[in-house]
Amino acid sequence: MEDDSSLLAKPEAPGTTVEPEPEAVVDEEERDPESNSLNQPLLKRNRTLSTNPLALVGASVSHIESLDYEINENDLFKHDWRSRSRVQVLQYIFLKWLLAFLVGLLTGLIATLINLAIENIAGYKLLAIVGFIQEERYLSGLVFFTGVNFSLTLSAAVLCVCFAPTAAGPGIPEIKAYLNGVDTPDMFGANTLLVKIFGSIGAVSAGLDLGKEGPLVHISACIASLLAQGGPDNYRLKWRWLRYFNNDRDRRDIITCGSSSGVCAAFRAPVGGVLFALEEVATWWRSSLLWRTFFSTAVVVVVLRAFIEVCNSGKCGLFGTGGLIIFDVSDVKVSYHAMDLIPVIIIGIIGGLLGSLYNHVLHKVLRLYNLINQKGKLHKVLLALGVSLFTSVCQYCLPFLAQCRPCDPSFREPCPTNDRAGNFKQFNCPAGHYNDLATLLLTTNDDAVRNIFSSHTSSEFHHTSILIFFALYCILGLITFGIAVPSGLFLPIILMGSGYGRLLGMLMGSYTNLDQGLYAVLGAASLMSGSMRMTVSLCVIFLELTNNLLLLPITMIVLLIAKTVGDCFNPSIYDIILELKGLPFLDANPEPWMRNLTVGELADAKPPVVTLCGIEKVSRIVDVLKNTTHNAFPVVDEDVLVPGTVATGATELHGLILRAHLVQALKKKWFLTEKRRTLDWEVREKFNWVELSERELKIEQVAVTRQEMEMYVDLHPLTNTTPYTVVESMSVAKAMVLFRQVGLRHMLIVPKYQGAGVPAIVGILTRQDLRAYNILTAFPHLASHKEQGKHN
Amino acid sequence: MEDDSSLLAKPEAPGTTVEPEPEAVVDEEERDPESNSLNQPLLKRNRTLSTNPLALVGASVSHIESLDYEINENDLFKHDWRSRSRVQVLQYIFLKWLLAFLVGLLTGLIATLINLAIENIAGYKLLAIVGFIQEERYLSGLVFFTGVNFSLTLSAAVLCVCFAPTAAGPGIPEIKAYLNGVDTPDMFGANTLLVKIFGSIGAVSAGLDLGKEGPLVHISACIASLLAQGGPDNYRLKWRWLRYFNNDRDRRDIITCGSSSGVCAAFRAPVGGVLFALEEVATWWRSSLLWRTFFSTAVVVVVLRAFIEVCNSGKCGLFGTGGLIIFDVSDVKVSYHAMDLIPVIIIGIIGGLLGSLYNHVLHKVLRLYNLINQKGKLHKVLLALGVSLFTSVCQYCLPFLAQCRPCDPSFREPCPTNDRAGNFKQFNCPAGHYNDLATLLLTTNDDAVRNIFSSHTSSEFHHTSILIFFALYCILGLITFGIAVPSGLFLPIILMGSGYGRLLGMLMGSYTNLDQGLYAVLGAASLMSGSMRMTVSLCVIFLELTNNLLLLPITMIVLLIAKTVGDCFNPSIYDIILELKGLPFLDANPEPWMRNLTVGELADAKPPVVTLCGIEKVSRIVDVLKNTTHNAFPVVDEDVLVPGTVATGATELHGLILRAHLVQALKKKWFLTEKRRTLDWEVREKFNWVELSERELKIEQVAVTRQEMEMYVDLHPLTNTTPYTVVESMSVAKAMVLFRQVGLRHMLIVPKYQGAGVPAIVGILTRQDLRAYNILTAFPHLASHKEQGKHN
Repeated sequence: MEDDSSLLAKPEAPGTTVEPEPEAVVDEEERDPESNSLNQPLLKRNRTLSTNPLALVGASVSHIESLDYEINENDLFKHDWRSRSRVQVLQYIFLKWLLAFLVGLLTGLIATLINLAIENIAGYKLLAIVGFIQEERYLSGLVFFTGVNFSLTLSAAVLCVCFAPTAAGPGIPEIKAYLNGVDTPDMFGANTLLVKIFGSIGAVSAGLDLGKEGPLVHISACIASLLAQGGPDNYRLKWRWLRYFNNDRDRRDIITCGSSSGVCAAFRAPVGGVLFALEEVATWWRSSLLWRTFFSTAVVVVVLRAFIEVCNSGKCGLFGTGGLIIFDVSDVKVSYHAMDLIPVIIIGIIGGLLGSLYNHVLHKVLRLYNLINQKGKLHKVLLALGVSLFTSVCQYCLPFLAQCRPCDPSFREPCPTNDRAGNFKQFNCPAGHYNDLATLLLTTNDDAVRNIFSSHTSSEFHHTSILIFFALYCILGLITFGIAVPSGLFLPIILMGSGYGRLLGMLMGSYTNLDQGLYAVLGAASLMSGSMRMTVSLCVIFLELTNNLLLLPITMIVLLIAKTVGDCFNPSIYDIILELKGLPFLDANPEPWMRNLTVGELADAKPPVVTLCGIEKVSRIVDVLKNTTHNAFPVVDEDVLVPGTVATGATELHGLILRAHLVQALKKKWFLTEKRRTLDWEVREKFNWVELSERELKIEQVAVTRQEMEMYVDLHPLTNTTPYTVVESMSVAKAMVLFRQVGLRHMLIVPKYQGAGVPAIVGILTRQDLRAYNILTAFPHLASHKEQGKHN
Repeated sequence: MEDDSSLLAKPEAPGTTVEPEPEAVVDEEERDPESNSLNQPLLKRNRTLSTNPLALVGASVSHIESLDYEINENDLFKHDWRSRSRVQVLQYIFLKWLLAFLVGLLTGLIATLINLAIENIAGYKLLAIVGFIQEERYLSGLVFFTGVNFSLTLSAAVLCVCFAPTAAGPGIPEIKAYLNGVDTPDMFGANTLLVKIFGSIGAVSAGLDLGKEGPLVHISACIASLLAQGGPDNYRLKWRWLRYFNNDRDRRDIITCGSSSGVCAAFRAPVGGVLFALEEVATWWRSSLLWRTFFSTAVVVVVLRAFIEVCNSGKCGLFGTGGLIIFDVSDVKVSYHAMDLIPVIIIGIIGGLLGSLYNHVLHKVLRLYNLINQKGKLHKVLLALGVSLFTSVCQYCLPFLAQCRPCDPSFREPCPTNDRAGNFKQFNCPAGHYNDLATLLLTTNDDAVRNIFSSHTSSEFHHTSILIFFALYCILGLITFGIAVPSGLFLPIILMGSGYGRLLGMLMGSYTNLDQGLYAVLGAASLMSGSMRMTVSLCVIFLELTNNLLLLPITMIVLLIAKTVGDCFNPSIYDIILELKGLPFLDANPEPWMRNLTVGELADAKPPVVTLCGIEKVSRIVDVLKNTTHNAFPVVDEDVLVPGTVATGATELHGLILRAHLVQALKKKWFLTEKRRTLDWEVREKFNWVELSERELKIEQVAVTRQEMEMYVDLHPLTNTTPYTVVESMSVAKAMVLFRQVGLRHMLIVPKYQGAGVPAIVGILTRQDLRAYNILTAFPHLASHKEQGKHN
């Protein structure tokens, strides 16, 4: 578990943290359950490859599990579902909306709390510094500043390292993986939530170069997950209504609501939040979900608005009038003409280049950090503290290098100020002068962005100051992200981007009549797009952030160009992190070479599938459960009569049974002394659908006596009779489309032949089997086709 | 064809216009191709039902066809795809983006043209009326006004009725159906495009209560479709590059770009356009498509902006400064508090009620109109002219009922005016007075909306005037939509909604401090949402339309409430029209009772499937093609050896062959004198992938000699070897999810049994078989479960 605490758990090749779910076909001579003990090697039939790379790659190195988004249609489910009354259906619908409402409400409140805490802690810290500076006690100021930041970072890092290692980093890649069907352990628990909240407050107040935006998304997803399961793991509410949500499908929907609420709370961008969830985070999307996420974000916005109204009356300490539209440039009269397209295109191109460069270098830095973080908890904390020290010293000392600039009466804001915020900080300058670098560095990150975005201030900053700012935040943006505190990526990239944008605006000089603040906004947008590769959602977020609709067309152009340029070099930063973490994320588009491979060939390269009979002996079930790690087993009936034909001795594919349901059957002693089919009422007396969905039970916790071992279990009523299947001649490309579009965990492969002696089932495919990396390991010759680019 | 010209082609039950694609299972005794002539009845095996309702419902009453969105992976495709060089892949990508660019550019230009034409025609008409009124020649004014409108309507209706009947109505439901996989004939041709452009200009200039927004979406989709296929049907460009687009998948993507460009051009709402396509129109959606539609709308916005810049310098005749943000309320200082939530909620509720009432009544009106329209071309034209006369008379005469109101010096706009636009029309009033009803009625629809949305004008309108306006537009909104001219639904609903909103604002009086213009905006939004049931996209469209971000939270609440209320009563207006038109649209969510039915049972209720052998006799192919209307046939090899087993006499499911490919094989004389498998080079010499995709060829156009009838065809290389399949025990609910998610046209059903004598294939499912209405016809007992609501 310790190893998971850093941002990057596994530095090895991608695909190393694997759910192990392969199978074995029962050979003819093994059909007799008596003779077939799984303690002897099962994997006899292995036609083409002597090793089974698909199953072995990283087998059981981690607890990552796939999620069951498929509806498990077994007899019990069907009965449970049929017996639901109209009232229960309404309860379910009501509860869905109630949860969406609560997610929005709690996200709004927690976002408010975080904002208040950060603004106050950072505010008092900055006011104290102003005091030191005014008394010219520069060294004491440095010690105080560094000390406060050091202890804030220490507390955040210790919280994170000791109590919830998964709270480090932004959390967005893991949410993306969850919605794709990959469950990272301990990702959405109560510990993670609390550590994320307080860790984020600590880390952002400490002036580190990271944002609260990513963590807010994760916080919101945690809230959603906890609400859906009725509380923390150990203290769950046993509310009867909540039983409807005891499945991965509904949790997925609520977490989608959560992630959009988080973005909404971070940027006060309700539409942007919905689109962010749609474009970047979610894998499956339905129209009804669009509507529910929209409702959640509407609630968040109302909560935030109410809070701002309260704060405007001065009850929030140092929070002031900042509000949450952090970079409001609505008063800028934007006027641009055809000629202004040229600088806009240049910004886009450079943003794309810088963004992909940032992705590339950050990848290297994260790999390096991972080596350090792996060494233990102390190393993690020390790394975080080192970064904090460097940041503090730079932020405090660099402003002394800047020349004091005289205040110009044309400035619209007070100049100079000694307030905690303000655009013209006096710092060490004489009266009537201000220090432009202190304005940018000795402030909160939000204020820094607001200052550099400020319009009608073309003479405010000296270009060396902006250059120093840009260079410093490039370094900080690379070294800060990987440390063990909750950290978002949005703000560091915005800071870097605004610096480069404003610099470019200065260089353009008289060529253009766009405002320099506008250049800063566009620079930030271009770098975001160049690194994160989002378009529509970023566009809307920037729209709602800057509150200026007239910027829309040029923002669109900048974003499109930056994304296009960036895509030429490397994938988006989230994809890079997903790959570094070894999360088996399934891409939307199959690789072109996947058309040249059939699922039958894939199944041949895997160990044979393990099947169970419809009425199976207890000893074999125990064997199978103890000696394999598969999560589902095909159920095949033998020697059945096919209705309407003369065929005898046929086999029948009955369906797929989950490991959890087998364990439940053993635990509940669902045993028969003879081979017979059970009746409906027998099953219903023994099981109910809700209990059956419990996943935590392990086979090791179930005791079966010697006598019971000789008895039988009727698996039919527990079997999902409607698994999705493909014929063995199906190409991997199309199978993958099916797998992803329908949200599967297991996909059965049926033979294309029909006749006596043909096995009822050829194999079973899981997420891991469809990952390009794993397939290429088993079929290296396909790699030569890999060169040919995707053309979809 | 004539019957298709009205908005509603078929008034019968839904699902009546059907593609007939069912099949027959080959019985044991029919295996010998010699003895099996399809001239004799094939449908012997019919286990459960004596009739075959699924196949019969409306069979061949229309030419509606399903689209092939699946990739047809046969040998030729694979070869074609493998042989594509890197350069060709780049050509393809470049072309995709070029087409997206061209769609945006042309949509922008045509939208400009339409706007210019309408503003000028309507402007000169209105100026002439002002002249008549000032000379007090009221009757001449009436005659002139009615006459001009009459002739404009006549030209639009004649164009529509005689040249392109499909150009009537908005076209959005058909686009929605197309993207769902249903091809309506003549929907995206050059005729339709031209008639839609000029018909729309005529109808809107005639002052009818309809908008240019819906038609613009259709126009844009036509442009996209024509570009993708290289020109009109008879004069296609034979550009080599375009061959890549000779498939339904790529056309689907381009038409999605087109529909979002259309909305963008209509409302100058680029993000709203993308979201509209996403939420309302598209069935499948990929992240890369999001990006490309966004690019298209960006191009549209740039074109429109350039055009406005030109027009601002006065070169556009009467176009003036209108611009395209038609209802800009950005100067309204919105301030609202918790108490304002109550009127906002009331607006939402009433909007939802009115919207669903509108849907209900419009449904009845459309059914009535359909009876009239069916009687022939003359009736259609007469109906349109009657509506035009009524509209003109009301618009001209009603203002005389209004009392003249004195101009208030506090008004921000000139008062009174005799200009073509303007918020305070003098009309028949003495100097210093204005006629508030003339301001709303005797103007273009766009200007009417702008006037009623206007802010700081709480004393402008008398409440009886608004009441008359509202009542009139309720009537017009119901009677105008179904006539045979291009008409959009957006504007009529906005007009109605703004009237009711403003009325409500007046009633609220001093209870609220929201502006009355704001009430009008919210009323329009609520009615749109109550009728069309969109949320996010409407919200963004209104945001971009009103250019005021502060309205966002209350707009969201209004939209959500209105949609929730409306959904309690009936489906959205587009769904109603889809059903009226009998388009076999496949819904996103399966009905709950579909879980109680397996696809095997469904297949049993259908006529048996018609299969072909891998190497089939020509005579049987000709028979099958002539005597069935199916569009695809499973290909099954018999007596094959299963590798790796001792099984003999097995059958092998080779895949699915399309009718078009069979016809091509016959036409190209792909005949063998003996039963043998052909070699790769033979096929490639005879066929190429592009020709194979031609769909127009009919079996009747192919001549086969008596001698050739005895020869064989090797179907293997032409067969799609990777059709999607389901096992017969799959529930219809899950099968439908698969069908829709992957975008299928045919889905094969394989048996769950495995053994000698079991048929290789149980049946084949098409879109029609999965439609709730058709299933219920065949299985009436399921209808009793229907009551239980969906709970997804």
